[in-house]
Amino acid sequence: MSSLLVLGGARSGKSRFAQQRIEQYAGKLAFIATAQPFDAEMRERIDRHKADRGERWHTIEAPFDLIDAIREADRQADAILIDCLTLWLSNLMLADKPIPAAQLCATVAQCRHPVILVSNEVGYGIVPENGLARRFRDEAGRFNQQVAAAVDAVALVVAGLPVFVKP
Amino acid sequence: MSSLLVLGGARSGKSRFAQQRIEQYAGKLAFIATAQPFDAEMRERIDRHKADRGERWHTIEAPFDLIDAIREADRQADAILIDCLTLWLSNLMLADKPIPAAQLCATVAQCRHPVILVSNEVGYGIVPENGLARRFRDEAGRFNQQVAAAVDAVALVVAGLPVFVKP
Amino acid sequence: MSSLLVLGGARSGKSRFAQQRIEQYAGKLAFIATAQPFDAEMRERIDRHKADRGERWHTIEAPFDLIDAIREADRQADAILIDCLTLWLSNLMLADKPIPAAQLCATVAQCRHPVILVSNEVGYGIVPENGLARRFRDEAGRFNQQVAAAVDAVALVVAGLPVFVKP
Repeated sequence: MSSLLVLGGARSGKSRFAQQRIEQYAGKLAFIATAQPFDAEMRERIDRHKADRGERWHTIEAPFDLIDAIREADRQADAILIDCLTLWLSNLMLADKPIPAAQLCATVAQCRHPVILVSNEVGYGIVPENGLARRFRDEAGRFNQQVAAAVDAVALVVAGLPVFVKP
Repeated sequence: MSSLLVLGGARSGKSRFAQQRIEQYAGKLAFIATAQPFDAEMRERIDRHKADRGERWHTIEAPFDLIDAIREADRQADAILIDCLTLWLSNLMLADKPIPAAQLCATVAQCRHPVILVSNEVGYGIVPENGLARRFRDEAGRFNQQVAAAVDAVALVVAGLPVFVKP
Repeated sequence: MSSLLVLGGARSGKSRFAQQRIEQYAGKLAFIATAQPFDAEMRERIDRHKADRGERWHTIEAPFDLIDAIREADRQADAILIDCLTLWLSNLMLADKPIPAAQLCATVAQCRHPVILVSNEVGYGIVPENGLARRFRDEAGRFNQQVAAAVDAVALVVAGLPVFVKP
């Protein structure tokens, strides 16, 4: 089925755009959350997002096992939203785990239901002084390229407005 | 009348694009400057920008009272340029004042003359280590979304070239 | 002949896009590398990029003398790739040398063969705390504007996908 990658900066409206887009599908909706509530700021953000979603939604928390979560969601729901890939990447990198990018792309391609994936653009600033930030920026950029090449469509969200860069 | 939000990164040419655009209107032009000359670097930047503008321009300094300044400009001038919203947001946040985003949008919508608003994209880099910078990035992103939803048109300026994302 | 500026963030796929684009031309290809191998990370990156290129390529290292390198490449090759302008700018700034932006633009305009120039977008994050980073960000932004105005076409690469902002 169709797949869409939604890219954007921080607070660009990418999550809201992705959510509105997936809510146009009928039936049950799966939300795959990759966030880990490290601190109060993050916990509050996760809870606010959960409260924003309605009754059609089922949430799967998958800070690491994203691929299994997608397969499960594809069995249970009629459309799948993954928010977001950048946090998943960050979780894997901080835990020194490999990044199964090719397997992710293959899993999405095999889904019977539409999938929307949200990811962050992080490479449009000055080179970070912090070595780990630099490595993360490199990985996130390459990863976004790989996913963008695999999905059917890519939208860059600017101030809440989508620009389809792979139509 | 028509309203246009001009977004862009630092030194993307967004101010120049906005200025050239507003100079296509006949009559008197109002420039609403939100910058505060904290230091020599900023003072020099403000003065350079002022020197670049011609005789048709009247400048209103409004680091805080932007909404009053817009109303005043709408009475006195035939077209209004606001440069920039991000500095205004930053001034309010640093002074611990509320951000009247909805009131700003309503004021712009009520103007009898065309309004061009300039704002910065600041969310396309790595998550800042500094907590205040993180909070500012979040506020600026949400604020840009809110203004983008309210105006008639939105252009993202890339290396001096406009990409209309809300045409 | 035709000139194209390819802009993008870190790991946006701008170099690969530029390379694939220039390889569509027949004949000999010149790669002008501006990188200086300061450390192992950079050396590895340069070597990986070299290994990726094929036999049609001739590499000219030009961390400073880019203008001479372009003239030489135009005599010897059928198409020229410059990767990247931002490193060149950085090399000049760190060595306290002037930035001959106008001369660069004129040299590219005079080339008998197609030229593709790669450059980084660095101004879409939070204002850097570091003064040198701020100054670099300003210079890089203005420089990109100047080159963008001079070339025939400009593409912004987002996750490997080109968006032509000056078609």
